[in-house]
Amino acid sequence: MPLPPPEFPAFDPAVAEGMVGAGAVMAGIPEYLGIRTVEAGAGRLVAEVAVRDELLNPFGALHGAVLSALADHVLGAVVYTVVERGYWAATTEFKLNFLAPVRTGTVRAESSIISMSRRTAVVRIDMENEGRAVAAAQGTVTIVPPRA
Amino acid sequence: MPLPPPEFPAFDPAVAEGMVGAGAVMAGIPEYLGIRTVEAGAGRLVAEVAVRDELLNPFGALHGAVLSALADHVLGAVVYTVVERGYWAATTEFKLNFLAPVRTGTVRAESSIISMSRRTAVVRIDMENEGRAVAAAQGTVTIVPPRA
Amino acid sequence: MPLPPPEFPAFDPAVAEGMVGAGAVMAGIPEYLGIRTVEAGAGRLVAEVAVRDELLNPFGALHGAVLSALADHVLGAVVYTVVERGYWAATTEFKLNFLAPVRTGTVRAESSIISMSRRTAVVRIDMENEGRAVAAAQGTVTIVPPRA
Amino acid sequence: MPLPPPEFPAFDPAVAEGMVGAGAVMAGIPEYLGIRTVEAGAGRLVAEVAVRDELLNPFGALHGAVLSALADHVLGAVVYTVVERGYWAATTEFKLNFLAPVRTGTVRAESSIISMSRRTAVVRIDMENEGRAVAAAQGTVTIVPPRA
Repeated sequence: MPLPPPEFPAFDPAVAEGMVGAGAVMAGIPEYLGIRTVEAGAGRLVAEVAVRDELLNPFGALHGAVLSALADHVLGAVVYTVVERGYWAATTEFKLNFLAPVRTGTVRAESSIISMSRRTAVVRIDMENEGRAVAAAQGTVTIVPPRA
Repeated sequence: MPLPPPEFPAFDPAVAEGMVGAGAVMAGIPEYLGIRTVEAGAGRLVAEVAVRDELLNPFGALHGAVLSALADHVLGAVVYTVVERGYWAATTEFKLNFLAPVRTGTVRAESSIISMSRRTAVVRIDMENEGRAVAAAQGTVTIVPPRA
Repeated sequence: MPLPPPEFPAFDPAVAEGMVGAGAVMAGIPEYLGIRTVEAGAGRLVAEVAVRDELLNPFGALHGAVLSALADHVLGAVVYTVVERGYWAATTEFKLNFLAPVRTGTVRAESSIISMSRRTAVVRIDMENEGRAVAAAQGTVTIVPPRA
Repeated sequence: MPLPPPEFPAFDPAVAEGMVGAGAVMAGIPEYLGIRTVEAGAGRLVAEVAVRDELLNPFGALHGAVLSALADHVLGAVVYTVVERGYWAATTEFKLNFLAPVRTGTVRAESSIISMSRRTAVVRIDMENEGRAVAAAQGTVTIVPPRA
């Protein structure tokens, strides 16, 4: 009997839709990793990274830094689905457990807001690969209002 | 589309049932806090603490140390539902977010194993009070075999 | 070459001194555990718990819930050394690693503010027992101004 | 009165020296970020990332994913200074607090093993930029022996 998710009065489906698809690849580390946002809803976002040789460590597994960067990215990004335009999501902290090595295929990271106040969102992240849980994270995002 | 939970071949319903009810109050800090295990299944356990004046801080909210102790308790306890008799669950680490203050009623903590190998379980905990999420945790338990 | 600690303009030695000693045992879970504040300075606090049989788990080690509660307690308490009177320290989150079992003697927990802004302090905690590191924590405290 | 660091009987200065300098840039995400190991000793490692425009987020601050990836990298790397050749360091989990934004210059991440057993190391990380603490992390590395 899990609790219902929080309510998100500022959710704007057009903003969420705008996060999905072609425009979802940002410059910098998201582009380098090839992070693609594939779903976005109220307080929920899914992004994927395709495994490629360059992202493996010398032992043939996806470098943990890739999952760490992906966790950070989806932790902040999900907050933009539920704040008014002009607000900024500043990741404050997160914790990440690595559950199983990733060797091939695609990592899918699902980010969900589990609690939200005017200034803070707490988010959980589940990552899976080839039908297996590969990482789990939990963190805090500070919601910063626009400068006057 | 969350992943199915891990499989727990060592799950013994009799052990789980034995964790629920009158015998569920252990001596020491669980007894002081009045932690009662109210449900136990394969990789899942629910325990409760009734708020009483003695457990409040000077600001009238449940002392965070109570939720911290409860988190630690259910993190390890859930592992006993799915290991062979004689194995020991040693909590390695956990992370806890406080989501909302608790002032009255009962705190219900639900603990679920999200990943398990031969030597390690990763566990998530959700705590609620009066229909509201009040804390969320994630941690690791090391599974120690019996001494030969 | 570690960085110098943050500056604490609101540090009041009299407040810190008042936290040490006989009056340092608060009612509730701190009293049950016997938490004693033994040192307090600017952004730094040391508290101790004496191990007693009642606090051991069935395996003869100090229950992890005791260290969890102690971590939560010193995480918030250290902030009172450096805020103006009337401000409130609300623990937001923390992460705790258990490093070694505790069986006898005293646990000494040292809490240090490593970063502080107007609204937030980030704190590290080191716990030792019999000359050995037994736990390490890191967490966030929100600093709440007095109500007008 | 902090505790002395753990002892590291398998420390080999030649291995540590080999981690520093020209060969310290690995392929993949460490190369993309330009992570350079600048110091390595027994249970201690320092690595740096130079801020460049490509690594900034749209708000002009270093993307949190860069610090997340750097944390993951130095968390595992420091363990190689103190294990026998052939052992593998598998990062199990970590927690990261962001303390201040980074806009220019170099991020210096110092990673220290605070506790070590035969199978596990617990590590703390301090990151600084322009004389200011910008991130702090704590995590666990599993030490995996070579396959027979």
